[in-house]
Amino acid sequence: MSVALRIAYLGPAGTFTEMAAGLLPHADKAQLIPVASVTDAMDAVLDGSADRAVVPIENSIEGGVSATSDALANTPGVQIYGEYLVPVRFDLMAKPGSKLTDVSDVLTHPVAFAQSRKWLQKNLATHSHVPAASTAAAAKALAAGAQVSAVIAATAAAELYGLEILASDIGENKEAQTRFIEIGRSGKPGAKTGSDKTSVVVELPGDKPGGLLEMLEQFAARGVNLSRIESRPIGDRFGRYRFNIDAQGHIEDEAIAEALMGLHRFSPKVIFLGSYPRADHNESVHLGNNENSDYESAKSWLDSLRG
Amino acid sequence: MSVALRIAYLGPAGTFTEMAAGLLPHADKAQLIPVASVTDAMDAVLDGSADRAVVPIENSIEGGVSATSDALANTPGVQIYGEYLVPVRFDLMAKPGSKLTDVSDVLTHPVAFAQSRKWLQKNLATHSHVPAASTAAAAKALAAGAQVSAVIAATAAAELYGLEILASDIGENKEAQTRFIEIGRSGKPGAKTGSDKTSVVVELPGDKPGGLLEMLEQFAARGVNLSRIESRPIGDRFGRYRFNIDAQGHIEDEAIAEALMGLHRFSPKVIFLGSYPRADHNESVHLGNNENSDYESAKSWLDSLRG
Amino acid sequence: MSVALRIAYLGPAGTFTEMAAGLLPHADKAQLIPVASVTDAMDAVLDGSADRAVVPIENSIEGGVSATSDALANTPGVQIYGEYLVPVRFDLMAKPGSKLTDVSDVLTHPVAFAQSRKWLQKNLATHSHVPAASTAAAAKALAAGAQVSAVIAATAAAELYGLEILASDIGENKEAQTRFIEIGRSGKPGAKTGSDKTSVVVELPGDKPGGLLEMLEQFAARGVNLSRIESRPIGDRFGRYRFNIDAQGHIEDEAIAEALMGLHRFSPKVIFLGSYPRADHNESVHLGNNENSDYESAKSWLDSLRG
Amino acid sequence: MSVALRIAYLGPAGTFTEMAAGLLPHADKAQLIPVASVTDAMDAVLDGSADRAVVPIENSIEGGVSATSDALANTPGVQIYGEYLVPVRFDLMAKPGSKLTDVSDVLTHPVAFAQSRKWLQKNLATHSHVPAASTAAAAKALAAGAQVSAVIAATAAAELYGLEILASDIGENKEAQTRFIEIGRSGKPGAKTGSDKTSVVVELPGDKPGGLLEMLEQFAARGVNLSRIESRPIGDRFGRYRFNIDAQGHIEDEAIAEALMGLHRFSPKVIFLGSYPRADHNESVHLGNNENSDYESAKSWLDSLRG
Repeated sequence: MSVALRIAYLGPAGTFTEMAAGLLPHADKAQLIPVASVTDAMDAVLDGSADRAVVPIENSIEGGVSATSDALANTPGVQIYGEYLVPVRFDLMAKPGSKLTDVSDVLTHPVAFAQSRKWLQKNLATHSHVPAASTAAAAKALAAGAQVSAVIAATAAAELYGLEILASDIGENKEAQTRFIEIGRSGKPGAKTGSDKTSVVVELPGDKPGGLLEMLEQFAARGVNLSRIESRPIGDRFGRYRFNIDAQGHIEDEAIAEALMGLHRFSPKVIFLGSYPRADHNESVHLGNNENSDYESAKSWLDSLRG
Repeated sequence: MSVALRIAYLGPAGTFTEMAAGLLPHADKAQLIPVASVTDAMDAVLDGSADRAVVPIENSIEGGVSATSDALANTPGVQIYGEYLVPVRFDLMAKPGSKLTDVSDVLTHPVAFAQSRKWLQKNLATHSHVPAASTAAAAKALAAGAQVSAVIAATAAAELYGLEILASDIGENKEAQTRFIEIGRSGKPGAKTGSDKTSVVVELPGDKPGGLLEMLEQFAARGVNLSRIESRPIGDRFGRYRFNIDAQGHIEDEAIAEALMGLHRFSPKVIFLGSYPRADHNESVHLGNNENSDYESAKSWLDSLRG
Repeated sequence: MSVALRIAYLGPAGTFTEMAAGLLPHADKAQLIPVASVTDAMDAVLDGSADRAVVPIENSIEGGVSATSDALANTPGVQIYGEYLVPVRFDLMAKPGSKLTDVSDVLTHPVAFAQSRKWLQKNLATHSHVPAASTAAAAKALAAGAQVSAVIAATAAAELYGLEILASDIGENKEAQTRFIEIGRSGKPGAKTGSDKTSVVVELPGDKPGGLLEMLEQFAARGVNLSRIESRPIGDRFGRYRFNIDAQGHIEDEAIAEALMGLHRFSPKVIFLGSYPRADHNESVHLGNNENSDYESAKSWLDSLRG
Repeated sequence: MSVALRIAYLGPAGTFTEMAAGLLPHADKAQLIPVASVTDAMDAVLDGSADRAVVPIENSIEGGVSATSDALANTPGVQIYGEYLVPVRFDLMAKPGSKLTDVSDVLTHPVAFAQSRKWLQKNLATHSHVPAASTAAAAKALAAGAQVSAVIAATAAAELYGLEILASDIGENKEAQTRFIEIGRSGKPGAKTGSDKTSVVVELPGDKPGGLLEMLEQFAARGVNLSRIESRPIGDRFGRYRFNIDAQGHIEDEAIAEALMGLHRFSPKVIFLGSYPRADHNESVHLGNNENSDYESAKSWLDSLRG
């Protein structure tokens, strides 16, 4: 008898995170467990109450989700095993029987509100924003009797919470996407696919002007392309940052492996967050002659020299 | 008859932003105008209803305020004229007569909630978070009858809204600070003080691996130190970023001027956000021989060669 | 009445340098003055006994002519105004009536001997080398009665000194060329042609590991391509070098001008050797957006920001 | 019965190279074999007629000995095993009974002549230079009856060839030194001493602007200091160079090993010339955390991540 995969996700039901969780392999047979925060999601993985956790890491419009970036930097024992892209589409919804002209205040997550701002300004002469923890939390609260006239949420939330859609796809950017990561306990990364990403957190040596430049040269010297770099405060004082970095390639790529070891020597603190398949399925390439075969022939040459 | 300076700030009264606004020169005689959002603050400056706007740009714990970073990148016509540091101290407060043991739900801004999380876990067996747009908005809402048992806000908010402090300084990091910027319409920067900062937004050329490295070399080649670099999505698709950068020095420093011109040639889009005095009053220095006198003697030499 | 140009060259008559001197504009009406050394050539220019001097700077096989590189670094007041390429073709020649089988010792310049080594090994069972100061000096000496059986020199020397060619074009590399420079007193460089070269001598700061890297970044940050870099000892002790560098472009190119000023700040000693047309007539381009129009628009932008 | 070491050196007896050969370990029991050229010296090692060869590589005043640099780049099968410094001191000498006032022409190597130029100008009203292949060859020739009035050579040559010293130590730079290398057949380098040097020849990829910068970054990314870089023409056409490089450290230093492998991937042609003790006995250090223990801990970390 097989045991179902248990996936913790940022709840309640109806969030975009739940949609992302549904994209995991075998998700159809999995048990989805809603949790209240990114930290709770990671805790669930660490204490064994979930096998995997799905949390948002970056929105194409709003940028990095700093709660996730910081939790990754501060939670030993977790690792990224996959990433998933979910298109972000917002609907305005209310209790059955409501009319658009009745809407005066809108409960939703600030990002959803910001994305819908232009539509609201054009279509609702006066409206005010009441912030919610997530779009699904807003829909659930309205269904439970919250004193607001409408919510902005994902289409799925309407059916889930018995609401009626007043206007569809009101977000400004129709191509908006959120990227989610699949987190598990630290372990051996999945096999290299050729379309991989490796994530790390790197602190800069505190007293070095040009430290960021020097850190980037650790990647450049091995031909490694970066697909993302996000600065986050270390938190002790202004002016000290760590960087959350996504690099193209897998830890089984020697270019990545050597860059990681270079960072380990350079940085006072470097955290490996995982090597995992890219959601966009593009090939991960290294510049110059930095394929594994190039590393092997260089190593053979070195061995022959050392005698 | 002198006219009072009109300063827009993220309201309502009692926010940390109001405290920052109080630090501007001549703030004691100024008219403080609360506004609802960063965008509203910038609009007030642009439409002339305010002379200056004060908005948060970075918290030492939570990092960059992306609404501000993005508004600066997307709002032509505004410029930074100053920065101000405000220590961030949170108190738990409720309606007069309340007791700590009565508190079940807490209305506050998510950052304040995150900062107070450890204290709450220890002192309030069960509690839930209701998000508010700002700590002062939470206090104001409670005073106006919101159905929550307590709020977390700055000390000043208690007196302002007739609330009673149940616990003082409950934030985890006692050194936490928020940095605020003073915004005005684009114009001639203030005079160089020797302790200056210059802010820019720089997009990377889209198709260049190593673009960030190359961009940083524009600063390094002139000995310019960076005090902050923040990546933000350009928003059209994943993988394209612009960088909000604070560099040490003033646009009247030739090192800064030449670096700015270098960025103008390198980048498809660079925005000058201003040169203004540093809040920490430290001297701004350039590495190597990159003082104005070094630029002058190099220019004299060049002129003599050109004949 | 016009006065003929006086051109000092490394003599005697019949040297490749004389051939190069013949390539100067108006050389047909010029007075050619043979001198004994590179230093004498420069002295002739400095003391006014010649208007121009022509000396070899680099051979495509043998590399830089260090006497010239060092004289340029150590002789204030001179500047390069042009460069000329001369194909290097060696003939074996002897007194009229000689036969190849008679040749036992060969008088010639070491470079000519090295270039002809393979031919000599194949065609002259036994032969020895007697070094001469130049190929033409060898021919002249043989004509004057030197006790050697043959010389290796340029074809022209045979007629000039009444010798007979025993074997033609015996050099190993048929494409070999020598590059010569035209030197005059320091002054305004000639006009920009679009196919220009700028030469400098740069010392590195003594105590800086990575100084060469940093120096090269002064060029890279302005998109300037180097066509040649030659290291020469400063001479005070091992491990201290100066670099003779040829960069693509003209001092009237802002990319070059800014790079020069950057070097002036970076280096304890930088010498401008001139901007002059390239002998290969290829276009000189700068990488990135580093044409003069790019510098102008960057400067206009800066001026508008400074208010 | 032990067999004496056979050491080929640039002859004849009395050269500075012979003095360098005398500095090799066990040189007192060695058989010294004079040869006529750098190529002959390398051939002697390759065909087994000598165990070691000693040739000059660099003079502190005159710079690199290009014949040696080029022979190292073009002679497969040889390797450097040591380096030796010899102070260069020149004496003016003539046949017994000669007087200084009799000297009209001086036979010597061009480098010795250049170094003695100032003294000659001051002390010999008129003199001319006759070039010789080496200072010892000049002394030997004079002893054998060459028609010149004096030679410039090392002190030792006077006694060796029965000449009389007319003036001692006439070189301009009293600190001048020549560095010699000890060459053997390619094999396992000697053990690491902590004061080591590693020599390589590196060609740049032909079509890459900024190739030199990129090559240097292979050293910089591993904290490796260079003590010497010399550019030499590849010889096929102008503008293509290879670089003879001396780096601090030994091939058993992981920093050096990784840099070598990086060069092997980057460069179309890289030649390892050897790792050997430094003649100056200074410690060889790598910048940053690039000692072998740093490489080991980085490797352990990587292995733990790979699972």
